[in-house]
Amino acid sequence: MGSPFILLNYKTYNQGTGQGAVEIARACRAVSEESGIEIAVAPQLPDIYRVASEVELPIFSQHMDGVGAGSFTGHVFGKCIKEAGAVGTLINHSERRLTLAEIEASLKAAKEFGLRAVICTNNVPTTAAAAALEPDYVAIEPPELIGSGIPVSKADPEVVSGSVEAVAKINSGVKVLCGAGISKGEDLRAALDLGSQGVLLASGIVKAADPKAALEDLIRLV
Amino acid sequence: MGSPFILLNYKTYNQGTGQGAVEIARACRAVSEESGIEIAVAPQLPDIYRVASEVELPIFSQHMDGVGAGSFTGHVFGKCIKEAGAVGTLINHSERRLTLAEIEASLKAAKEFGLRAVICTNNVPTTAAAAALEPDYVAIEPPELIGSGIPVSKADPEVVSGSVEAVAKINSGVKVLCGAGISKGEDLRAALDLGSQGVLLASGIVKAADPKAALEDLIRLV
Amino acid sequence: MGSPFILLNYKTYNQGTGQGAVEIARACRAVSEESGIEIAVAPQLPDIYRVASEVELPIFSQHMDGVGAGSFTGHVFGKCIKEAGAVGTLINHSERRLTLAEIEASLKAAKEFGLRAVICTNNVPTTAAAAALEPDYVAIEPPELIGSGIPVSKADPEVVSGSVEAVAKINSGVKVLCGAGISKGEDLRAALDLGSQGVLLASGIVKAADPKAALEDLIRLV
Amino acid sequence: MGSPFILLNYKTYNQGTGQGAVEIARACRAVSEESGIEIAVAPQLPDIYRVASEVELPIFSQHMDGVGAGSFTGHVFGKCIKEAGAVGTLINHSERRLTLAEIEASLKAAKEFGLRAVICTNNVPTTAAAAALEPDYVAIEPPELIGSGIPVSKADPEVVSGSVEAVAKINSGVKVLCGAGISKGEDLRAALDLGSQGVLLASGIVKAADPKAALEDLIRLV
Repeated sequence: MGSPFILLNYKTYNQGTGQGAVEIARACRAVSEESGIEIAVAPQLPDIYRVASEVELPIFSQHMDGVGAGSFTGHVFGKCIKEAGAVGTLINHSERRLTLAEIEASLKAAKEFGLRAVICTNNVPTTAAAAALEPDYVAIEPPELIGSGIPVSKADPEVVSGSVEAVAKINSGVKVLCGAGISKGEDLRAALDLGSQGVLLASGIVKAADPKAALEDLIRLV
Repeated sequence: MGSPFILLNYKTYNQGTGQGAVEIARACRAVSEESGIEIAVAPQLPDIYRVASEVELPIFSQHMDGVGAGSFTGHVFGKCIKEAGAVGTLINHSERRLTLAEIEASLKAAKEFGLRAVICTNNVPTTAAAAALEPDYVAIEPPELIGSGIPVSKADPEVVSGSVEAVAKINSGVKVLCGAGISKGEDLRAALDLGSQGVLLASGIVKAADPKAALEDLIRLV
Repeated sequence: MGSPFILLNYKTYNQGTGQGAVEIARACRAVSEESGIEIAVAPQLPDIYRVASEVELPIFSQHMDGVGAGSFTGHVFGKCIKEAGAVGTLINHSERRLTLAEIEASLKAAKEFGLRAVICTNNVPTTAAAAALEPDYVAIEPPELIGSGIPVSKADPEVVSGSVEAVAKINSGVKVLCGAGISKGEDLRAALDLGSQGVLLASGIVKAADPKAALEDLIRLV
Repeated sequence: MGSPFILLNYKTYNQGTGQGAVEIARACRAVSEESGIEIAVAPQLPDIYRVASEVELPIFSQHMDGVGAGSFTGHVFGKCIKEAGAVGTLINHSERRLTLAEIEASLKAAKEFGLRAVICTNNVPTTAAAAALEPDYVAIEPPELIGSGIPVSKADPEVVSGSVEAVAKINSGVKVLCGAGISKGEDLRAALDLGSQGVLLASGIVKAADPKAALEDLIRLV
């Protein structure tokens, strides 16, 4: 199986804004070094440069548009996030949905700029569709469980195992992450046992009183 | 009338990405100091912190969502751009349109975080509607002239004077900027003569071989 | 004050779909005739022609795009709803939001085709903005009360009276409707007492066991 | 191969609005009867019932939302188009794009109501993704060729053959249509020779001086 991939989405939580974005990244860096597990963070766009300047760990953007240089006010340009220090990006998060054509354009732009791409999906059929686009990762997250505290690996294990199977049929080179409600060691363990290769998580760590301790708990059963 | 306000939108132009964002900001800062005219820049979101760290001048975001802290992956949170160094934001640029409810929520959030707000509009009726929301500025830009090189002040002077009149009736405290095709000294002069209090401009300066010289030309008739 | 205007939005309720759309329109027609109060219906787009062919009463579309004849697959063209039998349209309902530029374009197209326009809004500032566009009506509906069964006229009377005041300042020719949670005679009475000139309502009538009786109750205190 | 499937999208063309929608459907019906080739029409939503009442041929909606009965003002509910007389629907036309999650929800709703579904796509990767969702048809249309008069089968034959191959790998039960610029007999012939099973077309027939003659020309090389 290899080591899992953990991607921590800061969303727009206060705790992960500005200097807080740097502090949480430091906690991730420390736990990643201690454990050898890859932990990446997805801070808000204006914080990418700041985090990258102060902490050495993989940074993902929370969103990226499939646009090039030009008249695209307010859009997220791959070259810009790359130069700011990002190594990858989420695409089509449930809180920032894109059209199918935009997902494909964003993925194409990510590849052009050498950015790793995680396409988020909401059920088995959309996971299969996303896998057909050949991203690095798909991240299946049933929207109704996001932020619920109820882990997808417990509430809906079939959506994880079904996604793993569907992706294997379409393109076995695509890795499957799962998310929604993941925060504890047993959640990550269950997610890996269902065949996923990592998790996308957010509030359970970012809003924890002690993010470093929360991360240590998360990985304790790996 | 007072001194005009000049707001330079970098869009996603290569010349204004990463280190380029800093260089153009330096040119703006120099011309602003020499002339006493307020010049602000709107770099891409990931470059706000970088520009703010290196150059002292007003920075605007190209977009801002009306969201607070929370589950808003990929959205632009006012607190985050403020902490990164922005003092204001564009809202509803023609390349990043929002619903009316979103414009109002974004404006409300901008006020909450002490950010100056520029609502972009496309014709006289939408300018009147935007003025009714009581932003700091409205910026009227006929979309068909954006990036055309044909200045709105020459191609469609009535949309500028009509916007100035409409705003005066609705709320005389709102300042009117105009944009689209503005790049030369006579364009700015004409815009001010039509009653606007400044301009929103982009490619004419950002893509100029010598942005500082282009800015000096822009303000020469003020 | 004159007689109030009652606009019944069928949404996609089963009860108001297909033949049901015709039956509810018949109930509205009967109550309108008995009372002399203008009652209009807004069935789903595919039912406009069917209702118009069978019942004589004012029909509104639930949505209209600001597009002309051309390459606009899946859009709602003013000429088409007019020829199908509509006399007006909702614009920017909270369940079908538009950008400010689209609202203005839709309103302009509605006027071009002689259709009455109701722009929906969510609070006092957006009501003021909508009034600046000069539609026939604005309909203020706090989204959190829609479908709640709690009438806006009781839960948030200030949003109704504030909207009436804001519109009076901007353009006294624009009529104010209010909606969200309205279903009983006292709700309509309160809405009128707060200065509105009618109501936009939906589930309270469409999903009633006896829509005709529900309408009779609604208007009993006028 | 079997007989091709021809789907005529009326968009919002004046010629296909109101009574015109019926006339063009009559021409399609006549040519379909003469030739034995299945020809379906996609009129505007308000015209579905009218066309279905007067002409016996398969009617598709130009768009459908993945919503059920409920609070979905201005949305297109599968049950409503079905009761109005539609047998299928376009989903995700380039002029009415949807998010990936919405496409999947719309397809699921179409299946629930027994409606045939055509998912539109813009290139080979998005065609593969759409095929993974298992619709009845995918319709590949490079947006830059739509309405150009330059047939996709001549300008970009690889996008057609590439789509056919990609779909065969993902799910051979999904039929491939192609569109954009198709209007003449040789365009349809070339489309079929490239492996597609039909075409989606619009202006070349709807705006023709004599739609029936244009249809007869279209099918002459089948």
